[in-house]
Amino acid sequence: MDIKAGLLKGDKRAAARLITLAENGDEEAVRIIRECYHLTGKARIIGITGPPGAGKSTVTDRLAKLLRMQDKKVSIIAVDPTSPFTGGAILGDRVRMNDLSTDPGVFIRSMGTRGALGGLSKAAHDAVRILDIFGSDYIFIETVGVGQSEVDIVKLADTVVMVMVPGLGDDIQAIKAGIMEIGDVFSVNKSDREGAERTAVELEMMLDFNKSSDFRPEVINIVARDNQNVDKLLEAIEKHWEYLCTKSNYQDRKRNSIHTEIISLINQYIITSIQKNNHSNLIQSMVEKVLKKELDPYSAAIEILQSVPIITTVQHDN
Amino acid sequence: MDIKAGLLKGDKRAAARLITLAENGDEEAVRIIRECYHLTGKARIIGITGPPGAGKSTVTDRLAKLLRMQDKKVSIIAVDPTSPFTGGAILGDRVRMNDLSTDPGVFIRSMGTRGALGGLSKAAHDAVRILDIFGSDYIFIETVGVGQSEVDIVKLADTVVMVMVPGLGDDIQAIKAGIMEIGDVFSVNKSDREGAERTAVELEMMLDFNKSSDFRPEVINIVARDNQNVDKLLEAIEKHWEYLCTKSNYQDRKRNSIHTEIISLINQYIITSIQKNNHSNLIQSMVEKVLKKELDPYSAAIEILQSVPIITTVQHDN
Repeated sequence: MDIKAGLLKGDKRAAARLITLAENGDEEAVRIIRECYHLTGKARIIGITGPPGAGKSTVTDRLAKLLRMQDKKVSIIAVDPTSPFTGGAILGDRVRMNDLSTDPGVFIRSMGTRGALGGLSKAAHDAVRILDIFGSDYIFIETVGVGQSEVDIVKLADTVVMVMVPGLGDDIQAIKAGIMEIGDVFSVNKSDREGAERTAVELEMMLDFNKSSDFRPEVINIVARDNQNVDKLLEAIEKHWEYLCTKSNYQDRKRNSIHTEIISLINQYIITSIQKNNHSNLIQSMVEKVLKKELDPYSAAIEILQSVPIITTVQHDN
Repeated sequence: MDIKAGLLKGDKRAAARLITLAENGDEEAVRIIRECYHLTGKARIIGITGPPGAGKSTVTDRLAKLLRMQDKKVSIIAVDPTSPFTGGAILGDRVRMNDLSTDPGVFIRSMGTRGALGGLSKAAHDAVRILDIFGSDYIFIETVGVGQSEVDIVKLADTVVMVMVPGLGDDIQAIKAGIMEIGDVFSVNKSDREGAERTAVELEMMLDFNKSSDFRPEVINIVARDNQNVDKLLEAIEKHWEYLCTKSNYQDRKRNSIHTEIISLINQYIITSIQKNNHSNLIQSMVEKVLKKELDPYSAAIEILQSVPIITTVQHDN
């Protein structure tokens, strides 16, 4: 199969194959993305994030269906909570969005932190580029949690939807403190539950208090399972898009996203170059020295950096 | 204040000051940790993790109190869900564990992802080393979520306690799939709630199914708020410790932790060296080129790597 030709024709199998290659750090994937990079930038990238149990996949599912009714081509990247060992993303494809997955206008992919160090962020970036070239009108990136890698992934998005839920317990305050700046639209899902109104009011208050941006995010109470108010949520997403388009904000956002991507690539290249050149022996011997307290980890890191011809290697690979 | 002397005497203010220096990437912090590195390895490191709302801080609080009754010196590092902008960790110190914080045998510190790229993992590693040198018998690291940086932090721990809770909704399956391998002890908190027994049974079944380790984690139903069964949880933690001590597992675990630490330090050094040498102009100009589609991000990363004398710089700094 000619993957590049397939991708440009909008062949799902080609897109799926290329994402797998990118996850595995295959050079072929990088080559194709580089060659087609000028074709990116057409898709709207929507980040869906929030704590576990908030119903993010249902929200994504319902938004995707609304967009399908407008005949938009939709891609969904579900970054699963994941094991560093098995690579996670086990359940994603199978459990969720069964009816969507048979729709030819929808591409669904789960990703886990398989293998590579700091690799999930890079893999997600690659997948977004690939699905952009593929011809998606909308790309949803769904991430659980509020960790650093999730934040890096969410920085890719044009619009970030925070999915909250009533009754998350004590951590709700901390979560809210952590996410106010990354959400462009707030959604209180499962709003048929007790406490939904209070959660919404608390969010509104915190948003009123936050004066760091001239865009005031909306708070939408929804029941995604029953399709209640999902259309209003989509409207709020569109309003944020209009705001982006009438301001220099869009360029700033893309700038941040590219900056994050470049830094993550630099890290990736260095780690790969250390691994590729059989310097893993060097790392192992350093680990043993630190274990025996003959060396501290800082000195070990510096010794490795000094011993590995990173720059030469990267040059050679390209 | 002579920070090093203070730290070695077990002065809390010295420890707090040094952790702040480490968070800010100050050379002084690295110097002191390096000089005292041979003193590390005495503290037991307990990771407390689980989804938001599970009551991790209450569990930590109750475990710490039990250990205080045995006159153990306890440190708690709470890695808060965090904003990439404000640095998070706003609420931690103030809201939680009010009575513990006045106990002279307890050190409590909140950390957020302030500033540095990939920096939270490094900062948490540093804090653990510092509190080990400080003379802690037990160091708790409490992290929310299941992201990559949380996993990196949790890899520091000798024993990882997974705090679960009944009724987390659909994501419970995915969470469980993601965490089976990182938990050494499982605790179902808020077990006075409906569904606690089912959650415990489901966990037991998944643990039975997982044959990747010869250690079978225990599942303990607790109500941390009411101090129910917290002693049993501590017993299970001690049992895991005994297992570690009678097997080569302990060395393997330390090896993994040191490996993660060294890789995270290498990344940190490279990013710092790029930033320090006024190469941010170079990065900015690359970002602009990518924005205009004159260049793809992969080529930009390689160009930056080729232009920055990383190795020389690191050498020079040390």
